[in-house]
Amino acid sequence: MVKPDLIIQGGTLLTMVEGEPPVRDATLLIQTGRIAGLMAPGDARPDFKGVQVLDATGTLVMPGLVNAHGHTAMTLFRGLADDLPLKQWLFEKIFPAEAKHLSEETVYWGALLGCLEMIASGTTTVSDGYFFQDATARAFQKAGIRALVAQGVIDFPAPGVPDPAQNLAVGKAFIERWDHVSDLIRPGLFCHSLTTCSDRTLQEAMAISRNFSLPLQVHLSETREEAEEVVRRSGERPVLHLARLGLLNQSLIAVHAVHLDDEEIRLLARHKVGIVHCPQSNMKLASGTARVAEMLKKELSVGLGTDGCASNNDLDLFKEMDTAAKLGKIATLDPVSTGAATVLKMATIGGAKVLGLDKEIGTLEVGKKADLITIDLNKPHLAPLYNPLSTIVYSASGSDVRDVIVNGKVLMKDRTFTGLDAKEVMAKVREISDRIRT
Amino acid sequence: MVKPDLIIQGGTLLTMVEGEPPVRDATLLIQTGRIAGLMAPGDARPDFKGVQVLDATGTLVMPGLVNAHGHTAMTLFRGLADDLPLKQWLFEKIFPAEAKHLSEETVYWGALLGCLEMIASGTTTVSDGYFFQDATARAFQKAGIRALVAQGVIDFPAPGVPDPAQNLAVGKAFIERWDHVSDLIRPGLFCHSLTTCSDRTLQEAMAISRNFSLPLQVHLSETREEAEEVVRRSGERPVLHLARLGLLNQSLIAVHAVHLDDEEIRLLARHKVGIVHCPQSNMKLASGTARVAEMLKKELSVGLGTDGCASNNDLDLFKEMDTAAKLGKIATLDPVSTGAATVLKMATIGGAKVLGLDKEIGTLEVGKKADLITIDLNKPHLAPLYNPLSTIVYSASGSDVRDVIVNGKVLMKDRTFTGLDAKEVMAKVREISDRIRT
Repeated sequence: MVKPDLIIQGGTLLTMVEGEPPVRDATLLIQTGRIAGLMAPGDARPDFKGVQVLDATGTLVMPGLVNAHGHTAMTLFRGLADDLPLKQWLFEKIFPAEAKHLSEETVYWGALLGCLEMIASGTTTVSDGYFFQDATARAFQKAGIRALVAQGVIDFPAPGVPDPAQNLAVGKAFIERWDHVSDLIRPGLFCHSLTTCSDRTLQEAMAISRNFSLPLQVHLSETREEAEEVVRRSGERPVLHLARLGLLNQSLIAVHAVHLDDEEIRLLARHKVGIVHCPQSNMKLASGTARVAEMLKKELSVGLGTDGCASNNDLDLFKEMDTAAKLGKIATLDPVSTGAATVLKMATIGGAKVLGLDKEIGTLEVGKKADLITIDLNKPHLAPLYNPLSTIVYSASGSDVRDVIVNGKVLMKDRTFTGLDAKEVMAKVREISDRIRT
Repeated sequence: MVKPDLIIQGGTLLTMVEGEPPVRDATLLIQTGRIAGLMAPGDARPDFKGVQVLDATGTLVMPGLVNAHGHTAMTLFRGLADDLPLKQWLFEKIFPAEAKHLSEETVYWGALLGCLEMIASGTTTVSDGYFFQDATARAFQKAGIRALVAQGVIDFPAPGVPDPAQNLAVGKAFIERWDHVSDLIRPGLFCHSLTTCSDRTLQEAMAISRNFSLPLQVHLSETREEAEEVVRRSGERPVLHLARLGLLNQSLIAVHAVHLDDEEIRLLARHKVGIVHCPQSNMKLASGTARVAEMLKKELSVGLGTDGCASNNDLDLFKEMDTAAKLGKIATLDPVSTGAATVLKMATIGGAKVLGLDKEIGTLEVGKKADLITIDLNKPHLAPLYNPLSTIVYSASGSDVRDVIVNGKVLMKDRTFTGLDAKEVMAKVREISDRIRT
């Protein structure tokens, strides 16, 4: 019998394993970063003396949430520009701010601020795509959060990559620096979109990704205009174009996937491409509504993403879950569509599967990584409790998360960050924002 | 010079008066429940010795939010039934639970739980329509929240009103008991809908309401089926039918107003009918999307409502604001539509106007009631701060509210309820929920 490092007991456990009901008064044993035991009240409990115990009485204990798509350091631009026409927002506000103000230093602090926010709202894994990704990876490592960190690839001059001819070389070098360096950080590439990356760039990015057995992220058909531009240039729908380029496979993560026809959904499903749904961003930018219910019917893996803070404007996956459920219903005019259980799966094991991490995270099972959160039920808006899934999706907010554990390590205890200095990070970002504002 | 009872100083003030920019380091003087003075940093400040001071440094100070439509005691059924077809949800779950479990006692505790939740998320005024409204009014009075409390009127046997022939008499007696009893509570009537109330009931309810100079609330065209049923029965669209019955006037509050044609919107605008938009409820029940942008263009007054907790499932107007903005954009495919300023107006002065309370609340102005909240900006997800309106609507949650003041009285200070015993209320509601569950 192994001796655990940490015992979590007394909470109501939601393993998120298909078909497993909530277990009241459960005990979890954690050892060297993994779940070593799960016990119900009747099970024999050896007496582990001197082991750290986290009393989870009055909480729900569940897998940490997986933010399957974000641009974390864009916290720097949160609220800088809203309620504008898309092109004005992007070309007059966001792109110039990025060009002028992104650096190793600003991305580091922006990513750390995002980590604080994600930890405080129960996210334990994030898939990030941006620039200056060494800084992002260092921030994630410092925060102790699990992450896929993908270097942005775009065939235009980009922050930190002034020469587009170097974009893949920069990305590959980034991967080489971070591959297998840490248990928590997986590097990768993020191709901005089919209209901003050439066919050759997309193909080479996929070749590099497969060579390292890493996923390749790409924004796919986020807006109608983007999909139409692909059709205009290539003569075929975006997913068919990806198919012809040989890019449809399990390594591909298609983000947004808003404007798809039936054949495209079928193709994505057949090739087991991972999908990331970003409902709040799609609503705020008026991009359109992804056909999530149909994708799930075709057994596509779908995760949930917040997207960046300039188009959301937060990294709270609880709000994202609530929105995903409600948007799914209003879009189909079917109140049964995208229910609480479906959405909660998207935010946990669904996202894990999309990122290729479902063997390690996404459910609470013996042998998996100890990435988990507790939700404090002792709040007026979480009472009464008829159905934990419904409570989590429709009533809870990120601020109801009490404790956060990643890789067996407690990152937030009773809403206090154990590792990061929130005051310092906020002060640094405020300094940076004073430069951006002017 | 009057001597204030309470001084609030150091925060950034958002008066919500049209055209007034945020005032940094502002001072508010409060006296006998009203705002007696508003000062910017340069203004002369007499030295008030011995007066209670609330230090609002690091917060936004703004008008308390107005929840323009709710069924507060439905907190009792939060999460009892979700993700079901509308008829099954209503006729197999909610109506039977209401019939069996509503009483003076259960409504009182359910309403108190709702008050805790509303205070904790910055709502200072609520417009409630339900049954056993003496209990609701007592709960609101106990909580110190400002409210319009409307007795439900429906031409079927209802909770507490077994004989529908008595529904208006019950409602009128309720109004008589509560009219002018309290500065905070205004009674009234709430006609359930045009399909569940006869023309005569609607007309009599309006006559009673006008007689007491009180608004009359009614669910209007929440679902397509409801609107179609009115057309089938009366041969005319619901708003035209209301017009023929003589019900279109400033006393009418039309809730939901989802399925309206252009003529109906014009008619509602011409007669200055108040509209309440309930985006989260409309999404979750897949009712449809109200044409808010068009209504605002026609200068209709629009407030924001959470609806009941069985169809939302919370009373957090911050979430509702975020959703209202994003739903407005995705529904019109226009990212400029329903921006932060518009939505924030709906949740404050807009709602106040709909409820006929805009002379008293909804903005922070000298002479108005001191109903206000502070928002703690010292949170990772609220940094940096470029635009307070955007921060409030797109990034903040109810849990970021730090202090709540209604009628000059502090109801929550530094997130601690000053009057209500949250533990007791939650325990009572959990007891009731144990009976409901079985």
